[in-house]
Amino acid sequence: MAQQERAVRTRRAVLEAAATVFAEHGYAAATVADILKLAGLTKGALYFHFPSKEALAQGILEAQVPQQLIPQELKLQEWVDAGMTLAHQLPRDPVLRAGARLSAEYTGDEQHGSAFPAWIAFSASLLDQAKRNGEVLGHVEPTETAECLLGSFHGVQLFSQLQSNWADIEQRASVLFRHVLPAIAVPSALVRLDTAPDRGARVVAELKAMAAEQDGLVPLAG
Amino acid sequence: MAQQERAVRTRRAVLEAAATVFAEHGYAAATVADILKLAGLTKGALYFHFPSKEALAQGILEAQVPQQLIPQELKLQEWVDAGMTLAHQLPRDPVLRAGARLSAEYTGDEQHGSAFPAWIAFSASLLDQAKRNGEVLGHVEPTETAECLLGSFHGVQLFSQLQSNWADIEQRASVLFRHVLPAIAVPSALVRLDTAPDRGARVVAELKAMAAEQDGLVPLAG
Repeated sequence: MAQQERAVRTRRAVLEAAATVFAEHGYAAATVADILKLAGLTKGALYFHFPSKEALAQGILEAQVPQQLIPQELKLQEWVDAGMTLAHQLPRDPVLRAGARLSAEYTGDEQHGSAFPAWIAFSASLLDQAKRNGEVLGHVEPTETAECLLGSFHGVQLFSQLQSNWADIEQRASVLFRHVLPAIAVPSALVRLDTAPDRGARVVAELKAMAAEQDGLVPLAG
Repeated sequence: MAQQERAVRTRRAVLEAAATVFAEHGYAAATVADILKLAGLTKGALYFHFPSKEALAQGILEAQVPQQLIPQELKLQEWVDAGMTLAHQLPRDPVLRAGARLSAEYTGDEQHGSAFPAWIAFSASLLDQAKRNGEVLGHVEPTETAECLLGSFHGVQLFSQLQSNWADIEQRASVLFRHVLPAIAVPSALVRLDTAPDRGARVVAELKAMAAEQDGLVPLAG
């Protein structure tokens, strides 16, 4: 393994250990000692990547919004895909769960920031493109809808956590999109959107296959 | 003041003091000493109404779902009114804010319960009546929609707390209903629904006028 690749993997392992601790205890109660213990690292190795607890929280918050979506015919489908992918990954990725908790705790006084503004900007930009393509009804205001979806999605995932420890999050996210899309999509777009509960799993599988191809590996069939 | 009325008022004052402490610190960190100090009461007076911290939380949780709605032509308007009234009262009533926090903290292990199941049952029952009246689209499942709205509303009010300390909650609740209703209401009902941000304030004013009339008082004009 190249040295650079090893450093990237260590950085990710540190971030995941910190995320696991933040997601369970919140920022204030989390200690660097807990994170070191979980990551199986020395203080030096951790501080090489993140000089402080605040830097760990920032690293987690910067990793929330997807770097990549699979291009779709409808921009509105990409908007749905961002949400359904998040729903699929939340139970599997402590970095996303910690991001949600840290963002919801952020009142402006804490050392760390919030991922909510980045999510809103990302979501509003997709809605804006969808509107210019004629997929979204004329009265829809992208930022208003993006904020409404962010608040709603956050509450639905909290409720899913309470009800099932996130086991039903994909089902509940699918229900949320079914309840919101008729208010924003033009009828001809609405009937073409895929909001099935397993949509996120299929998009993630496709992204993984694409990444494997880029690495020069042929993805396994099935 | 009759002795019974005085007891009712003291009970409400105790509940509000407890709610203020729970809403700010959560259940675990709240102490009976803090509550006594805020209520200006002795331990004896408090324990006459609520024998324990758990009983205080239960009293708060039982006071969440409205006892009274103003009958409307459309049951779906009553469903909207329950949400818009809650949005209007949240910034004004610590009992409702504490109820939201205690419910969101409840994972099944705590001493207190959650108001979420009662809200879902109340909301689903209104949707069920609306469906039988032909106001709601045939494919709508009342409990599914009630759970979706509960999660969404909870997240939207959390986001409003972060953004504005609940100053914009009525605006955000109005936006939420505008985003959800086209998915559930038949077109002829949809156009008749009032989801304006000040809907909750008007319903609350009407409820107060009705209560004053029942007390034999004539409500003030304006």
